[in-house]
Amino acid sequence: MSQKKYAVGVDFGTESGRAVLVDVSSGAVVATSVYQYADGVIDEKLPGANLALPPDWALQNPLDYIETFKRTVPAVLKEAGVDPADVIGVGIDFTACTMMPTRKDGAPLCALPAWRDNPHAWVKLWKHHAAQPEADKINEVARQRGEDWLPIYGGKISSEWFFSKALQILDEAPDVYEAADRLIEGADWVVWQLTGEEKRNLCTAGYKAIWQKKEGFPSREYFAALDPRMADIVDTKMSRDIYPLGARAGGLTEEAAGWTGLKPGTAVAIANVDAHVTVPAATVTEPGTMVMIMGTSICHMVLGRERKEVEGMCGVVEDGIIPGLYGYEAGQSGVGDIFAWFVDNGVPPEYHEAAQARGLDLHALLEAEAARLKPGESGLVALDWWNGNRSVLVDVDLTGLLVGATLATTAPEIYRALIEATAFGTRMIIEAFEHNGVAVNEIVAAGGLPEKNKLLMQIYADVTGRPFKVVATAYGSALGSAMHGAVAAGMAAGGYESIVEAAQHMAHLKDEMFTPISEHTAVYDRLYAEYVTLHDYFGRGENDVMKRLKAMRAEIVANK
Amino acid sequence: MSQKKYAVGVDFGTESGRAVLVDVSSGAVVATSVYQYADGVIDEKLPGANLALPPDWALQNPLDYIETFKRTVPAVLKEAGVDPADVIGVGIDFTACTMMPTRKDGAPLCALPAWRDNPHAWVKLWKHHAAQPEADKINEVARQRGEDWLPIYGGKISSEWFFSKALQILDEAPDVYEAADRLIEGADWVVWQLTGEEKRNLCTAGYKAIWQKKEGFPSREYFAALDPRMADIVDTKMSRDIYPLGARAGGLTEEAAGWTGLKPGTAVAIANVDAHVTVPAATVTEPGTMVMIMGTSICHMVLGRERKEVEGMCGVVEDGIIPGLYGYEAGQSGVGDIFAWFVDNGVPPEYHEAAQARGLDLHALLEAEAARLKPGESGLVALDWWNGNRSVLVDVDLTGLLVGATLATTAPEIYRALIEATAFGTRMIIEAFEHNGVAVNEIVAAGGLPEKNKLLMQIYADVTGRPFKVVATAYGSALGSAMHGAVAAGMAAGGYESIVEAAQHMAHLKDEMFTPISEHTAVYDRLYAEYVTLHDYFGRGENDVMKRLKAMRAEIVANK
Repeated sequence: MSQKKYAVGVDFGTESGRAVLVDVSSGAVVATSVYQYADGVIDEKLPGANLALPPDWALQNPLDYIETFKRTVPAVLKEAGVDPADVIGVGIDFTACTMMPTRKDGAPLCALPAWRDNPHAWVKLWKHHAAQPEADKINEVARQRGEDWLPIYGGKISSEWFFSKALQILDEAPDVYEAADRLIEGADWVVWQLTGEEKRNLCTAGYKAIWQKKEGFPSREYFAALDPRMADIVDTKMSRDIYPLGARAGGLTEEAAGWTGLKPGTAVAIANVDAHVTVPAATVTEPGTMVMIMGTSICHMVLGRERKEVEGMCGVVEDGIIPGLYGYEAGQSGVGDIFAWFVDNGVPPEYHEAAQARGLDLHALLEAEAARLKPGESGLVALDWWNGNRSVLVDVDLTGLLVGATLATTAPEIYRALIEATAFGTRMIIEAFEHNGVAVNEIVAAGGLPEKNKLLMQIYADVTGRPFKVVATAYGSALGSAMHGAVAAGMAAGGYESIVEAAQHMAHLKDEMFTPISEHTAVYDRLYAEYVTLHDYFGRGENDVMKRLKAMRAEIVANK
Repeated sequence: MSQKKYAVGVDFGTESGRAVLVDVSSGAVVATSVYQYADGVIDEKLPGANLALPPDWALQNPLDYIETFKRTVPAVLKEAGVDPADVIGVGIDFTACTMMPTRKDGAPLCALPAWRDNPHAWVKLWKHHAAQPEADKINEVARQRGEDWLPIYGGKISSEWFFSKALQILDEAPDVYEAADRLIEGADWVVWQLTGEEKRNLCTAGYKAIWQKKEGFPSREYFAALDPRMADIVDTKMSRDIYPLGARAGGLTEEAAGWTGLKPGTAVAIANVDAHVTVPAATVTEPGTMVMIMGTSICHMVLGRERKEVEGMCGVVEDGIIPGLYGYEAGQSGVGDIFAWFVDNGVPPEYHEAAQARGLDLHALLEAEAARLKPGESGLVALDWWNGNRSVLVDVDLTGLLVGATLATTAPEIYRALIEATAFGTRMIIEAFEHNGVAVNEIVAAGGLPEKNKLLMQIYADVTGRPFKVVATAYGSALGSAMHGAVAAGMAAGGYESIVEAAQHMAHLKDEMFTPISEHTAVYDRLYAEYVTLHDYFGRGENDVMKRLKAMRAEIVANK
């Protein structure tokens, strides 16, 4: 018998980075370590400069990524007592689009004295929302030119995505744009730092930078129409060489081996995105099963054998999640965020006191109270648009609605109605997929919510009429990265031939499963019909009251 | 100079009765006294019997009315040190329709041992809501027969009204119906007790018993169609002699003089309804000025020179408020009730704590916070239907709606949106009147809300674009009753020729007035347009989601 082999997965999140050390044979997470980024999310003031950031900005410091390697990988090796020689591969995943300007040698502009006081020299985090004017222009020019790629992205490119952020740099800091030899995803930058190889991954290219395997990037003519100075952005600051997921980017450099305590030359996988890398970690490598990452928002991913256009999806990318298949992504922009809003803003003291008396957090107390209600008993229906609507309407200006309130309506009833509304939102997405020939037979849930709220999981099963399984590990994305590390290492090194094979050994589900209760589903079918009617009335232009109210609010706040 | 003269007004409310002693020359309230009914609102168990009442029942004990005279009138005389010989008249007002079965001699059936254990023998209070099936039948038969009177009452007779309650007695307790020599409003019964004269007032006949000066009551044929046993209800158990407001019903009997400490023979006015009697007490005796009684709900009253049909009004009655004019009534079924619901069910602890720290009640704290917002700043619009909609839609199955919520929405924003929604509801009523040729140029407010919430008053002025004045006294209805007492006494006794003349001397407004602020009105015009669109969409059949949700809730609760 050969010695046990291990892989390392590193998940770069919004506030922190986490490493896991995983047993390649079983997928067991044998050690885990977290590093809270020293600079965290930079959204108020640039570090080391007395410069306030405008609203909607969100930056990161790339040195926090290097620090993550230094702090967490040695820690997991030490905790597990594993010999670095038995670690066969490293994989990483990242938030996206999280992008930055660098020099040709990979040095981040923000790390150079000449540029560090310019906010555009820093990493623009996924939730940097200040590039909306640029996104609007990208969409407008694409519509005018009838670009074929627009429908592949649900008809709308987000302000969060790569070219929106790149164009903002060009618009607001042309000198930074000019000085940037490279514009690159954080995901690819850290792989570059580990291996010395600038190799760009297919997942961020496909989902965030409008790249498709057959068509490549948008045309030079399109970029020229957007801004003549941007015509050659791909050839001068990016790359047309896009690498598949699970491929070996290179081996650890001596320097990176020093940071991590791993052996030089250890296989490093092409980078991945946190949500997408969770799909194989959730055992899913075939069409028919949707993976939902359920937290403050929900990301929905499902695989298909063909490229279909689905209303309001975030994108469909060939090989984007699992090589050989089309990866579809959709999303709900507010889920856990809405429940948190309600808990903070809508619950009277008696429930706070009851929660305290019972030693529960307020969510758990409301869950217990809401669980005593039957479907339909609250008499309430909500539209879950407190944070806009991502899929299928792709409209940030939509807002929340509650209908059915009476003088007898209680806080737990509203809490349950909000959960139900987000479940209806998911059903709407599932039906959009199925309507366009992308099957969704069952669901595997990952993320924080499935761990926290069983009532919510049952409601989702009841509303969608589909069984919900739950991924076994709490570290789905880091496990997925470790799995890709094992694939990058290859069979000869004790890893796997493919991510499909890796998933067969390393990915697991919990025994617990949420099965639809047919009497509940029957009631929810009726409530969902009401939701759809309201959804279409308020979301498809029949009554644009939400947009008008939001515009009025903005106008009044601006003049106050 | 002659000696100062006084009048007594007694206001019979839901939980208590109040007497005021008023200086006839100035209208000054010189003393006031309240009696909390010993049996209060009887809605759980019949007094003296181990009999639980069904849901939606609400009864009173008529002996509490007599006790009110005994407790309060001597008290005000004593407090003011006024000689009973200087009290020239007594007027009373009552909630309505508050009705009861009696013997020919006036003895309430519920006071007789043979009947006191039968709940139908007791007074059915205005908010007894168990006669909805009977109201439905009354409306259905009226529609089938094309009864002319139906549009005069907004197209729908309420379950609260006289014949709904009478038919419920017949349906459920035919023996009580049979034993009842008289079916009579509490208002008229107390005047009967004071004077020995059964004289029925025009106000309750007109607004609650479908009586019109020219047409009288509905026809014998109509009643026969409703139920053959009810064909002769008017001639056998009621009276076609309907007396005008301000007329002298009679003089105090020896017995009633004993109860009150007043002189036998003191003039007693024909009874009135609490809301309607407030109109002259609010200085209003001419068309063009609406009086709004603002509390848990709102009652809107305005005068006109002709009878017009106005959508969803509660009724129009010639001489119903002021002799010689048509009195129009409309209403909103939930106002202060909605704010109270929100304060109890929707406000997180931080505001409770802030209110306590500042020594304010929570309404006042929310008012102060909401006052810092500009119109439109919340981005919210609500439909104020937490307790259904009285005017103009006349639909108890409508429910509350809130649109525009975001993750930044706060409790004071919602509180303000709820106030605004009730103001939009009032504007809808005003516009329905004006659209049908009934002028509403300005408003006089009475009731509890104008005393408590200045922000609300300003919002109402801004939303309606009309000045809001406020009645000077907190005891508007009792003052109005005293004024009618002074009219019943007549000029010779030191009173007045007419209620118009009485109002000129006895009714006063506060100096404070709420004038529309034009920038606010401009914003509210835009928000009101949104309210109207939503009102019509949800209220006029385009999307009956509210009714379906309410029916679903009822079905599920029934099967639980």
